[in-house]
Amino acid sequence: MTEAIAYELAKKQQEISVAEFFERNKHILGFGNPTRALMTSVKEGVDNALDACEESGILPDIYVEIRNHAEEEECTIIVEDNGPGIVKQQLPHVFARLLYGSRFHSIRQTRGQQGIGISAVVLYGQLTTGKHAKIISKIQQDLPAVVVELAIDTVKNRGEIISQDIEHWEKPSGTRIEVSILADCKRGKRFVYDYLKSTSIVNPHARITFKEMDGTQHVFECTSDQLPKMAVEVKPHPYGVELGTMLKLAKNTNSRKLSSFLKNEFSSMGDRTTNAVCDEAQLDRNMDPGKMNRDQFMALNKAFKKIKIMSPSTECLSPIGETLIKRSLKSETQEISPEFIITATRPASVYSGNPFQVEVGIVYGGSLPKDKPVTILRFANRVPLLYQQGDCQSTIALGSIDWRRYGFDQPNGKGIPSGPAIFLVHVASTQIPFTSESKEAIADIPEIESEVVLAFRECARKVQFHINKKVKRVKTREKFELITKILPEIAKKSAHMLGRPEPPLDKVITSIMDVVWIEDLVEYEKVSGKSVEQKKLFDDSVQQQAGRWITKSTIMIVNYKPKPQKFSLYALIPQDAVVGTVSPKPVKITPQYIKWNVDGLASAKKMDISFELAGLSKGDFDVNDLYVEHINPAYVIGADKWEGD
Amino acid sequence: MTEAIAYELAKKQQEISVAEFFERNKHILGFGNPTRALMTSVKEGVDNALDACEESGILPDIYVEIRNHAEEEECTIIVEDNGPGIVKQQLPHVFARLLYGSRFHSIRQTRGQQGIGISAVVLYGQLTTGKHAKIISKIQQDLPAVVVELAIDTVKNRGEIISQDIEHWEKPSGTRIEVSILADCKRGKRFVYDYLKSTSIVNPHARITFKEMDGTQHVFECTSDQLPKMAVEVKPHPYGVELGTMLKLAKNTNSRKLSSFLKNEFSSMGDRTTNAVCDEAQLDRNMDPGKMNRDQFMALNKAFKKIKIMSPSTECLSPIGETLIKRSLKSETQEISPEFIITATRPASVYSGNPFQVEVGIVYGGSLPKDKPVTILRFANRVPLLYQQGDCQSTIALGSIDWRRYGFDQPNGKGIPSGPAIFLVHVASTQIPFTSESKEAIADIPEIESEVVLAFRECARKVQFHINKKVKRVKTREKFELITKILPEIAKKSAHMLGRPEPPLDKVITSIMDVVWIEDLVEYEKVSGKSVEQKKLFDDSVQQQAGRWITKSTIMIVNYKPKPQKFSLYALIPQDAVVGTVSPKPVKITPQYIKWNVDGLASAKKMDISFELAGLSKGDFDVNDLYVEHINPAYVIGADKWEGD
Repeated sequence: MTEAIAYELAKKQQEISVAEFFERNKHILGFGNPTRALMTSVKEGVDNALDACEESGILPDIYVEIRNHAEEEECTIIVEDNGPGIVKQQLPHVFARLLYGSRFHSIRQTRGQQGIGISAVVLYGQLTTGKHAKIISKIQQDLPAVVVELAIDTVKNRGEIISQDIEHWEKPSGTRIEVSILADCKRGKRFVYDYLKSTSIVNPHARITFKEMDGTQHVFECTSDQLPKMAVEVKPHPYGVELGTMLKLAKNTNSRKLSSFLKNEFSSMGDRTTNAVCDEAQLDRNMDPGKMNRDQFMALNKAFKKIKIMSPSTECLSPIGETLIKRSLKSETQEISPEFIITATRPASVYSGNPFQVEVGIVYGGSLPKDKPVTILRFANRVPLLYQQGDCQSTIALGSIDWRRYGFDQPNGKGIPSGPAIFLVHVASTQIPFTSESKEAIADIPEIESEVVLAFRECARKVQFHINKKVKRVKTREKFELITKILPEIAKKSAHMLGRPEPPLDKVITSIMDVVWIEDLVEYEKVSGKSVEQKKLFDDSVQQQAGRWITKSTIMIVNYKPKPQKFSLYALIPQDAVVGTVSPKPVKITPQYIKWNVDGLASAKKMDISFELAGLSKGDFDVNDLYVEHINPAYVIGADKWEGD
Repeated sequence: MTEAIAYELAKKQQEISVAEFFERNKHILGFGNPTRALMTSVKEGVDNALDACEESGILPDIYVEIRNHAEEEECTIIVEDNGPGIVKQQLPHVFARLLYGSRFHSIRQTRGQQGIGISAVVLYGQLTTGKHAKIISKIQQDLPAVVVELAIDTVKNRGEIISQDIEHWEKPSGTRIEVSILADCKRGKRFVYDYLKSTSIVNPHARITFKEMDGTQHVFECTSDQLPKMAVEVKPHPYGVELGTMLKLAKNTNSRKLSSFLKNEFSSMGDRTTNAVCDEAQLDRNMDPGKMNRDQFMALNKAFKKIKIMSPSTECLSPIGETLIKRSLKSETQEISPEFIITATRPASVYSGNPFQVEVGIVYGGSLPKDKPVTILRFANRVPLLYQQGDCQSTIALGSIDWRRYGFDQPNGKGIPSGPAIFLVHVASTQIPFTSESKEAIADIPEIESEVVLAFRECARKVQFHINKKVKRVKTREKFELITKILPEIAKKSAHMLGRPEPPLDKVITSIMDVVWIEDLVEYEKVSGKSVEQKKLFDDSVQQQAGRWITKSTIMIVNYKPKPQKFSLYALIPQDAVVGTVSPKPVKITPQYIKWNVDGLASAKKMDISFELAGLSKGDFDVNDLYVEHINPAYVIGADKWEGD
């Protein structure tokens, strides 16, 4: 009897194709409801387009269109790029076969990884509308474009070419996909717009055109003709690499010596580290990795944890960068003129052998609501994350900080704080650990959590510092205005009474003030250009204007101390800025700062310093970061202690 | 040049095995960190064990053990059941091959669905410890058990038998799995305990033994020898079924007529409905479904939405049920004696053709904290969900209700309310739409969301009603106590002054009170049994004692109205309760209620009613639900208007 059962059950056991699986679980891929389905479909298309262009060194020019049909719920999504195109034989695999791609096995930062996304869109379209996806691909100027209609055989998880043809296509090369899906365009298009906007901001080298159902067309112009630093493929980093992964590497390595195995198959392993690891693991560095047993690898794995290994090289990563983060935050704050924007970038770190890097930014003040929870903008590998904020580790991490200490509201010091701020967090990694294939939230990886916390703490401290500085300056100014008003009066009166000339007051004032007063001002001057083109550009958001502005910074130093002052002044300059005219002549200019020596500024005397920056757009750089050296910073208003490079 | 690129990229394109995919994305499966890894591994093992036993009609007796090793981070997990066992040939597939199983293609409620879970545990173990999984399976009393060691070839996604043997095993049949994984036992075991406890509560037919690393052993005895109603396999329901699914069904059907196709391939399709659908879609019911085109199916699909189709039969679902929900909530409240527990069960509904049903419960009052957010207990197909509460649609749904109307605290009427309550929600479905393969949160499916909202609204109203009733009763009692104290005094005094006997006061009192007063009391009487065994049982939590108690309910009716009263009284009885002695003789007993006719209860007279219930455990039934008929309920304290069966 029991036997019968086991055999009975055995008969039912069968393989499930990955396509069947995702067809059944389409919500896992982000197709849970018609609004998200629209958003997800566009996202997958655009991510692919950007990746394709970038890895071929082409500046992306992407066209997105949403058409809807008589059947109100059905719509067609079109995503077209100017990438290298895809060879005909690969089309059914790339677009109609899940878990098939080029980026899974390479360790470097890309948007797509799994080879699921775009095929999932085709699958969802087929499931909900029964229509086939249409792909156009052109791989070479002087060849015609290939046009195929694709279906997915879900049982086999294979693409079927339903029809194929060739046609003339203007552009030198590119790919175009048309998929009909069941979606809620009315409610969904807003999300699509937001997603494309955010995307264009953190991908300034991309030009994105979005055409809505009613024909309205939005153009997000590219604001940089530089492709982001190409992320290079690297070896896994030893930190947190799993034993199983090591066994695999050992199985496939050509190295016949443990030492060379370690140096060839892992990153950041120089001779010194390699030897240290071998010694720690008590393994002969000349032994054959192919002959090592599980326990020996276990020892090696333990040694990795004990020995200090250099952080991974960041060449496999492509962070957004300070300037773009600020720009992105600016565009969110629009007319709200915030008090300041602060950013922090962590050094690269590692989880399970995957390098990653965290960047965060905070906009503070202005007309941002004080009683609402802060807005959180999340990005992963330059892709905006728009859903599942609640369970995203980045959110959970920042919620674990007690923000009350930094002047925010936060019930029992946990969760998302309230205050006039917008938080931005970007995680760049060769392998973003998403909670699901819909790629909307980052999983709870302890290493990532702690990096996010550290980054936000750094920002929070700066926020606090800015607030304090403001307060200090205001106080001193009141004091200053007071005595510069009252003292002369007294002097005048008493002089008059005594019928003697007014005494010089500088000494008195300075001895009361007893500070070095530094004030700075940042202005923007437009570089006049082809005004027609300009006109067009100005219709679009701030980020469109980069490179068309000169940022002019003037610094005024007044010595309100009784004695002459001698010190050095440092002005930090943002990434990507090009330094123009500087006066007076500085003693040093580095990519990070400009340094002046103020030698012997007499009491009550004033000194003006100015410099110009190019390559920034209006507002990228709105407050000077000033530091002083060789003077007691307690006597300086408007600059801080220089901690050295 | 461009050509080169496309071909270059083509070379890199390759298939990714599902095992490789999940190996890389182990966090998606719930192995994101060492604490969760432990929990997930046990969960997958136990879910499988329960499913296997239940579908073979065996009462589950499950043994779970966690051993940890010298290498502090590594531990071995053992899950053993008394199920039917698994035939040898299937072992490598079932335990070491992802997306392989027996339940994916059958539409009925089971815990496992995808054939990923247990293989994922084996995969994770291999990845983190490099050790093989050990499986013991016995399929028949008089056969020896098979013992195999399994590894997963991730590139092929196939199981490899590393070693095999046979051995003697006491039990008639069963399966045992031993996997060594990297996990945090110290922090993880607490979750494992909680998970097993909750599991045993909603699976009272299962006996679960849990042995910790230090040898401590917890036994969760089964409290019912009844297997839950076996969920029957059904056809998809027409509501929300995708076009693609219909095309598939049409391709594989044997029906040669549209009408028979509809009746054979879908549930809830009778002749009438079938014809209505065909007419609505303007399709000839005799046409061959194999010859229908996309637009015709589209029309059919639209018709499904327009025609009223019977809700799906619940035979494919196995809800937890009122009593178990109460019991589960009781066990959470432990010594906290809550004021009342309320439950609501929705009729079965459908999303994308999948039947589902929502049950909720609320514990209120007692010493539950008033200022903390309510605790939320989530279950899906009788499996407790312990992670990702934030993005679980059930949480989001209940957060969308304005709980302030029901006496809870809730900032701007959104999110999880605060108050002295515990909320429980269970979603039962043939296909739970989890947000990811780790099966911890339910995705945002609109149909499910609205059902959860409706269920909680129903509960909320009952909560409100209970609170009002309490208030009303208290008020009346004060009034009553007042007049029964003062009136006699007055009477006595005046009688004394006039030197006459005290007048009877009933008439006066009743005319002032003018209500029918109903009070009830529930007591529990233990059925004395083999005291030794009892002793052992009492060490464990409340649910251990079911069936060993008689619930005695006594109802007192006093007519404080000037005239005799004639009406009917209904007392609701909980599911699974067996009615014992009832006095006085009722006029009707149904599975839902007991009905008495109170005819002509004289003014100021009292009447006692009592009944006994068996088959409940202590506290399952603590408050009577009383209703009255043929009397104006406004004049009744302690019972409500009978709305009819």
